[in-house]
Amino acid sequence: MTDVMDFVESPAMALRVDDGFQLASVDPDATPGYTGNKAGGEALLAHQDGKLAELQEKLFAEARFGGFKRVLLILQAMDTAGKGGIVRHVMGAMDPQGVQLKSFKAPTDEEKSYDFLWRIEKEVPAAGMMGVFDRSQYEDVLIHRVHAWAPPEEIKRRYAAINEFEGRLTDAGTKVVKVMLHISRDEQKKRLLARLDNPEKHWKYSTGDLKQRAFWEDYMAAYQAAFDITSTEVAPWYVVPANKKWYARIAVQELLLSALEGLNLEWPKADFDVEAERRLVERS
Amino acid sequence: MTDVMDFVESPAMALRVDDGFQLASVDPDATPGYTGNKAGGEALLAHQDGKLAELQEKLFAEARFGGFKRVLLILQAMDTAGKGGIVRHVMGAMDPQGVQLKSFKAPTDEEKSYDFLWRIEKEVPAAGMMGVFDRSQYEDVLIHRVHAWAPPEEIKRRYAAINEFEGRLTDAGTKVVKVMLHISRDEQKKRLLARLDNPEKHWKYSTGDLKQRAFWEDYMAAYQAAFDITSTEVAPWYVVPANKKWYARIAVQELLLSALEGLNLEWPKADFDVEAERRLVERS
Repeated sequence: MTDVMDFVESPAMALRVDDGFQLASVDPDATPGYTGNKAGGEALLAHQDGKLAELQEKLFAEARFGGFKRVLLILQAMDTAGKGGIVRHVMGAMDPQGVQLKSFKAPTDEEKSYDFLWRIEKEVPAAGMMGVFDRSQYEDVLIHRVHAWAPPEEIKRRYAAINEFEGRLTDAGTKVVKVMLHISRDEQKKRLLARLDNPEKHWKYSTGDLKQRAFWEDYMAAYQAAFDITSTEVAPWYVVPANKKWYARIAVQELLLSALEGLNLEWPKADFDVEAERRLVERS
Repeated sequence: MTDVMDFVESPAMALRVDDGFQLASVDPDATPGYTGNKAGGEALLAHQDGKLAELQEKLFAEARFGGFKRVLLILQAMDTAGKGGIVRHVMGAMDPQGVQLKSFKAPTDEEKSYDFLWRIEKEVPAAGMMGVFDRSQYEDVLIHRVHAWAPPEEIKRRYAAINEFEGRLTDAGTKVVKVMLHISRDEQKKRLLARLDNPEKHWKYSTGDLKQRAFWEDYMAAYQAAFDITSTEVAPWYVVPANKKWYARIAVQELLLSALEGLNLEWPKADFDVEAERRLVERS
């Protein structure tokens, strides 16, 4: 195997939303922390698959012996930014048994009758799981803000409720990793046209996408506002430039690896007498 | 890429449990329908991954446009037979978004207070999904029969209830694929010892496994009885020799490919005017 080029700076540092962060300053074409090209990125993705799968298995194993650790990856993005590709190419490397994926759609009438976090709470990852939210509680402060479906004071209440909620998840052993995949308006146009060009992709095209596209700047403002209030010490946001799909994938993979490594996972010790058990098996 | 050796006879034919089937006649070391070796099998597995993923995506896409088709793979086996490996290496090739996996454990007190199919019904795959049951309703006619946790007439009632249940699933658009991974008693001993030899695998070892192992022949009789009654036209059983893990994986992969191909899936046609939409995007 040839040498695989790794990040020169951890995405956990390079992409983190800290005080003073300005979304408008992020170049969606950039590859922060990575100096390689597409081929290098694809090689890195494949190379790290095994490491990610092993850490996920350790996380799963710990929970079988009473551990409470877990990870929740929250994915938010404009349409076509590549959330599905992250799920397929990054999460797909892990054992399906240990991955808990929830795609949040427009809420049902029943869901709307409760507080916005009601349907979210039901989908938080179980102990030992790698949870993924494809869209999330943030829709309630993004699309709702853009279209003024909720008044400003209600949006403000939701930011605070989200911070409390994520604090509680963290206290329960969850490492929350929040990712915005950031594409440019031009890149979205290209991708929408590509979907229209390919009959096998027509099912992914929604005429509603254009309606949201028309509110691009409002969405960026809503993301900025959400970052300002909800990028916390325990649950920071990461803005991942996503015009280059290969970069977005290795960046998110690396964020998950950092999160898992930070959990100091250990293989559970046998709670039985290994030698005695071996004798029993040999005799059986 | 070198030539990939395919099956010479479809597993859907070679492994199907039909009238007069005798489990005792199946050699767990055999590779029915496949004349290649391990390297050939591993190459075939990798080669068919993309085909499986594409069919799964078509299935998912159809459901987004009102389709009701879906697949349910039921996996039953003695401990260590490789159910987890099937999930990782066969199901793992598909988009996690389209895979719905449920591992059934010993029932909770609440689950036990209902009919045995109550907890099963709640986990059947949604339209468009590739469902997998790791253990299933069959535990209620296998372990329950072996240990006489239910009287013979109740076990008999359950066989009939299962057939009705699976008939109903089929009527709702589900292709039910039932697989028993068949290992030998000696192979299980080897695998249990291997787990004990590797501290990273100790968490997978349960002292309870030996207790079930002691009832090996009773389990085989319970499987035979279940096959006799529940291998139906709409939901047949397949017995997959599983001493060779690589064979079990390509066999199950091929069974899923056959099931998906039998659904005659089509990419949904656009329900909008593609040209008009293209002009709108270009102008946006």
